[in-house]
Amino acid sequence: MPADPDPARWGAHAADRLAALAACSLPGPGVTRLPFTPEHRAALDLLTGWIRAAGLAVQIDAAGTLVGRLDGPAGAPTLLMGTHQDSVREGGGFDGIMGVVLPLLALEALQEEGTALPFAVEVLAFADEEGVRFPTALIGPRALAGTFDPEVLGMADGAGVTLAEALDGFGCAPGEIAGLARDPGGVLGYLETHIEQGPVLEAEGLALGVVTAICGIERHPLVLTGETGHAGTLPMEMRRDALAGAAELVLEVERLARATPGLLGTMGTLDLAPGAVNAVPREVQSVVELRAPEDAVREAAGAALTDFARAMAAERGLGLEMRRRYVQPATLCDHGLSELLAAAVAEVTGGPARRLPSGATHDASAMADLCPVAMLFVRCTGGVSHRPEEHATAEDMGAAVAAIAGFLKRLADTL
Amino acid sequence: MPADPDPARWGAHAADRLAALAACSLPGPGVTRLPFTPEHRAALDLLTGWIRAAGLAVQIDAAGTLVGRLDGPAGAPTLLMGTHQDSVREGGGFDGIMGVVLPLLALEALQEEGTALPFAVEVLAFADEEGVRFPTALIGPRALAGTFDPEVLGMADGAGVTLAEALDGFGCAPGEIAGLARDPGGVLGYLETHIEQGPVLEAEGLALGVVTAICGIERHPLVLTGETGHAGTLPMEMRRDALAGAAELVLEVERLARATPGLLGTMGTLDLAPGAVNAVPREVQSVVELRAPEDAVREAAGAALTDFARAMAAERGLGLEMRRRYVQPATLCDHGLSELLAAAVAEVTGGPARRLPSGATHDASAMADLCPVAMLFVRCTGGVSHRPEEHATAEDMGAAVAAIAGFLKRLADTL
Repeated sequence: MPADPDPARWGAHAADRLAALAACSLPGPGVTRLPFTPEHRAALDLLTGWIRAAGLAVQIDAAGTLVGRLDGPAGAPTLLMGTHQDSVREGGGFDGIMGVVLPLLALEALQEEGTALPFAVEVLAFADEEGVRFPTALIGPRALAGTFDPEVLGMADGAGVTLAEALDGFGCAPGEIAGLARDPGGVLGYLETHIEQGPVLEAEGLALGVVTAICGIERHPLVLTGETGHAGTLPMEMRRDALAGAAELVLEVERLARATPGLLGTMGTLDLAPGAVNAVPREVQSVVELRAPEDAVREAAGAALTDFARAMAAERGLGLEMRRRYVQPATLCDHGLSELLAAAVAEVTGGPARRLPSGATHDASAMADLCPVAMLFVRCTGGVSHRPEEHATAEDMGAAVAAIAGFLKRLADTL
Repeated sequence: MPADPDPARWGAHAADRLAALAACSLPGPGVTRLPFTPEHRAALDLLTGWIRAAGLAVQIDAAGTLVGRLDGPAGAPTLLMGTHQDSVREGGGFDGIMGVVLPLLALEALQEEGTALPFAVEVLAFADEEGVRFPTALIGPRALAGTFDPEVLGMADGAGVTLAEALDGFGCAPGEIAGLARDPGGVLGYLETHIEQGPVLEAEGLALGVVTAICGIERHPLVLTGETGHAGTLPMEMRRDALAGAAELVLEVERLARATPGLLGTMGTLDLAPGAVNAVPREVQSVVELRAPEDAVREAAGAALTDFARAMAAERGLGLEMRRRYVQPATLCDHGLSELLAAAVAEVTGGPARRLPSGATHDASAMADLCPVAMLFVRCTGGVSHRPEEHATAEDMGAAVAAIAGFLKRLADTL
């Protein structure tokens, strides 16, 4: 196996390109680049230039995905690599877009060292994953996977522009999205590179990690209803305090998640009525969110917490409405691709690859309906994401470029 | 001792008068009667008519208190009876004002049966106790007790009208308030009649209760500060979740208050940031409120909960700001007056008088700086107060009239 490309040099390239892409943003703190906007167009123009310079063919498909293609031998299958180009409002310059820049640099590194791959490669920049502009997301990967629902074309953004109109205005033909579905037989797999958006790699002093699975998610909105009363006149033994009931549930979610490997449990909102210093709380609205890389673990936790909440409410004489209203199953990363990726990471970093689940959703979740997927995580400073401070170092990005290049060569060796 | 006045008849009078007074309100659900308004004036006009008809002299003092006076023998001391005329916004027709109507009816009942008292009696309708219009309250009783702070005259209502201007516009002379202070030597005591504003009497099937003390109050505003993070990417063992810490405190406040006789503990507000379904809570703001009829009990609880919160925050790595910012000591009701009142209640109700603390503050808290105070509680439906549904039955009000009359005769017997 040839020596890895020089991480410092490729990391510097990555930092330069990401700085240029970060300028493709609405004014204001951080990066705001929503799909099918002038900022999106500016970013695609930059990417197109770099992709063409690397000798790839470029087009924008009917779903707004920028596709840079490096052909392989005739009839060879295709490896897909990429992620989304969009950001949240006032987000950072790394979430998403970094995962378009790094695989392109890996291809450039391989070309520079004269390595030809026995398969075709496409670098993809999906239009939208964050779901900020429209109440839908993942249009690009769903189109490729053949799971795109044309009904969402009628959804409108805050200004009343429908997704179909936005695509049309961007030069895309929404009517042709159905034709984008790929033949699974011709696709080797999908590799997504992304900042971790969490603190694990940083805490362990590691630049890179290999994702085991994208956690499944379920959400249980709930309303606990007791009775209000004057804080000075309602005796303790006559109270049905909705906040005290909610407090029990908060602590049980925490206890169970701490005790269950892989499970994350969060109550991130809590709205209380009437909400006065001298009034016993009558009602609490909240949401229990659970995530786990294994669906069975998550579902067992959801059932256990629902049982706990029901028993607690009965014990306290509180009303309880609690129903699971959102479920997204976990996406397992492909074992074979992940082993190749882990070997490449180990070579670059000089230690065994850290395996970790992704708690956040990614384009890979939708791509898994088409093909095997793998994900490379890059350490981000302070675990911060979706904020202007979001950052990955040039050094870590260079290591990622080297690992992607190593992955491509290892994959070539398997064919 | 002569027979008690007929409760049914006097209760019907009370209900009629309170219905008329409830119409002295801004439009909208329930009663809204703020101090120094046309509604206040209308209520005083009605009361003035009934007080004059009962043969009492009437005036409105410099603090806006309506004073109906029935002279006693020359040089005899004065018993004060009354409460506030004002309501909260969209409140009920009983909180406050009932305590002006019932003692007047008791005097009418005594006059009707030919009983003359060996002391003077004044029926008082204070302008404001709820503190809704101005950021101050208890102007009337503080004026009588000589504790009125003239600085509050400069406080403005939501429309920018100062208290001094409001008094002036109501025909009162704010500059003369200082001269209203009574000589404690000439005052026998103060009896306040009020709906319970709680559920205890109703739960025990009792029409009336005798108040032991007005609970002291302390409030501890607090801010718990942890760290936010993505609910999918921040591992449980790395979390510093401000809501989980607050939940521990909510349950400890409840546990301690349940375990401590007389103590009421409430956390009625809870504001959480950033407050998103998929974000670990960074900050919780809340307030611990404690009430008890014994100051030592309340203060020990406040110290214990502060210690608990500090230990919990240290254990969880949370920041904590928590300071006692509001303290109002308890007001003990006078033993002698309360015994007379309890005997009268026992005679009317045919059972021993229920003694209970008042968790809410009343004019009696301020009057206690002038003279011994006693309080009679009247059952209210469902424990509801400060709402349009607030209600006390004619029957219970009739019983209260009889009890007040009995109290006056018993007090007369002691002189």
